[in-house]
Amino acid sequence: MIQVNDAISIIKDNCFKMAAKKIRVSKSLGYILAESIFSPINMPPFRQSSMDGYAFSYGESRRFDIIGTSQAGDFLNFEIKKNQAVRIFTGAFVPDNADTVVMQENITATEGVIEINKMPLRFDNVRKKGEQVKKGELVLKENTLITPAAIGFLVSLGIKEIMIHDKPKVAIVVTGNELVKAGKKLPKGKIYESNSIMLKVALQQTGVKKVKTFRVKDNFEATKTVLKDCLSDFDIVLVSGGISVGDFDFVKESLLSNNVEELFYKINQKPGKPLFFGKKENTIVFALPGNPASALTCFYVYVLPAIKKMLGYEAIHLPKINRKISTDFTNSTGKALFLKAFYDDEKVTVLDSQSSAMLNTFAVANGLIYLPYDLVNIKQEMEVTVLPFN
Amino acid sequence: MIQVNDAISIIKDNCFKMAAKKIRVSKSLGYILAESIFSPINMPPFRQSSMDGYAFSYGESRRFDIIGTSQAGDFLNFEIKKNQAVRIFTGAFVPDNADTVVMQENITATEGVIEINKMPLRFDNVRKKGEQVKKGELVLKENTLITPAAIGFLVSLGIKEIMIHDKPKVAIVVTGNELVKAGKKLPKGKIYESNSIMLKVALQQTGVKKVKTFRVKDNFEATKTVLKDCLSDFDIVLVSGGISVGDFDFVKESLLSNNVEELFYKINQKPGKPLFFGKKENTIVFALPGNPASALTCFYVYVLPAIKKMLGYEAIHLPKINRKISTDFTNSTGKALFLKAFYDDEKVTVLDSQSSAMLNTFAVANGLIYLPYDLVNIKQEMEVTVLPFN
Repeated sequence: MIQVNDAISIIKDNCFKMAAKKIRVSKSLGYILAESIFSPINMPPFRQSSMDGYAFSYGESRRFDIIGTSQAGDFLNFEIKKNQAVRIFTGAFVPDNADTVVMQENITATEGVIEINKMPLRFDNVRKKGEQVKKGELVLKENTLITPAAIGFLVSLGIKEIMIHDKPKVAIVVTGNELVKAGKKLPKGKIYESNSIMLKVALQQTGVKKVKTFRVKDNFEATKTVLKDCLSDFDIVLVSGGISVGDFDFVKESLLSNNVEELFYKINQKPGKPLFFGKKENTIVFALPGNPASALTCFYVYVLPAIKKMLGYEAIHLPKINRKISTDFTNSTGKALFLKAFYDDEKVTVLDSQSSAMLNTFAVANGLIYLPYDLVNIKQEMEVTVLPFN
Repeated sequence: MIQVNDAISIIKDNCFKMAAKKIRVSKSLGYILAESIFSPINMPPFRQSSMDGYAFSYGESRRFDIIGTSQAGDFLNFEIKKNQAVRIFTGAFVPDNADTVVMQENITATEGVIEINKMPLRFDNVRKKGEQVKKGELVLKENTLITPAAIGFLVSLGIKEIMIHDKPKVAIVVTGNELVKAGKKLPKGKIYESNSIMLKVALQQTGVKKVKTFRVKDNFEATKTVLKDCLSDFDIVLVSGGISVGDFDFVKESLLSNNVEELFYKINQKPGKPLFFGKKENTIVFALPGNPASALTCFYVYVLPAIKKMLGYEAIHLPKINRKISTDFTNSTGKALFLKAFYDDEKVTVLDSQSSAMLNTFAVANGLIYLPYDLVNIKQEMEVTVLPFN
């Protein structure tokens, strides 16, 4: 049995970034860049007006004849003589022999003629070619997270495809003779199986969509066979249930007989003690407790960081926040506790029922309070660590 | 021109929750419940062992013959006599005339006979029928956010469909003669259009997927016609560009001529001053500035809260966090500022280039610093408000 922090270190050391893959920029939200990006163009690609106004060649004149209009999108390279100007709009091409734009607020216009009331400085309101980004310049470093802004930026540079770290394919293996698929009639002695859909949507929330669910009876040979296929076809195998010490818990045995290397089994925590973590070649395996709330706690605390590491994230853990706890609390278990909780801007409240067999409390929680195993007496108003779900 | 907080209030007052709709629980992640949910079953649905051990009828005996095995999923209603017990596993049905389960750690077993070393209390390790949830009990209140845990919980109760608030359909209308679709050759005077894909993925990140993009030239009639259709077919219309004061900015005129009610136009802020917000029947309209960084700032600060309100969220704004600013900063603009920034656990740094025309800074920012218009002198180490993107 190991402590929480050791378990996290072992996971960190045993998960590797997924291979790089080329994808369309428009599909890259939430991925991590597997290459550095250099701009293929200058931005702006031409001298551009940054204002609505009039473009002219700076000199002594304050009075100009208007010889045409340059709207954004036009490429009208007017020959502008001294005493001539061009009506110009934000984003429009500035003719080659104009060097300055005067804002429209600072002129008086009368029938094809303008008079400047407030003279700009030379070069004012003209964005130079490549002023913001030069062709060939490093624009996004490897390991950058692709956000909506990054996608907009890449598209504005005309980039269509980028290399990112691929997302893992995940197998969910549900064990348990007592489980019935939701929607069917519930025979005596059975309960509805909910872990597979719960884990699937939790994965979906992290952006992992290639998820396949397998169901297996509590039987060594059947479990071993299903796991064998999963270990060869998936990057992550999440097993739900069958990992305690009961006679009918075949999962660990089935994993070991498939040559999965055990990296840890059992963590000094509640809920979620009987967590198994192992590896076979590049596939990692988590065998999660069957109790739904234990399974989901282990997912947030251990599986999610593993996925983030594989996706290429640098910050792989649930962000931690500190909040004042709203009541006294004693942890006499000697175990680390993850308590279903509700936090707001100031405080955090431990929710009433902490049973690991049911999700009723988890369903209304917005985070987990993490109490280290050696923190016994928690007094009201003490700052505690909260792992927010969102 | 109005202040930031007034703009937010006006948005809050003018967006309404979307209509309720029935969907499958498995597809309901991120929605808000439009009904209260009552449990259709007892949980557990039968008396259930919470341990691996032996079920017996509490009395004076410590020594029992084992007459059978009840595995999870079985429904074996053994007739257990005095001095008899049944081998039982976690989650398994407890036979009607057993009332107690002794943990397997606390017995000695020899050839079909067990001897209890440490006697449990009567009723120990037996979960009563309906102990966690009673049939008919309120289990999730209206307005609850559907999380992975909530989905697991609903499925465990055998619930397949729920009523939620629907998601809005969004039209993105991109204006600008200068814009070329990414991937095409870039003619002189043109730039790549990136706002539509940026807004589309930003919407996608909020879970809004019914998004359609329209492109229109800078022309009053064309703009008016496209907007007319969008106003009748979508819940939200996001217009990009064409909202400044230039001669070629037709958007506001086109909106008003389509009988859109102007709720505000222009906010005392930088970037994103020329934001227009209006409404026609149940469709709301944001006309965003064309500059990508301005458009995205307005999206995060104003459009996102509007969407959350429509989805039924109670907390509709970007969560705010406080961080110590890493440098002095003077805001002499008289405007509220939204500065592209990078924050960590302790401090926040204003990023170098704050140009609103380019997304290079936005692409590496993880939040915006919000400085109210009347906060002029910001000293290093002062706590400022940060709006984190994630």
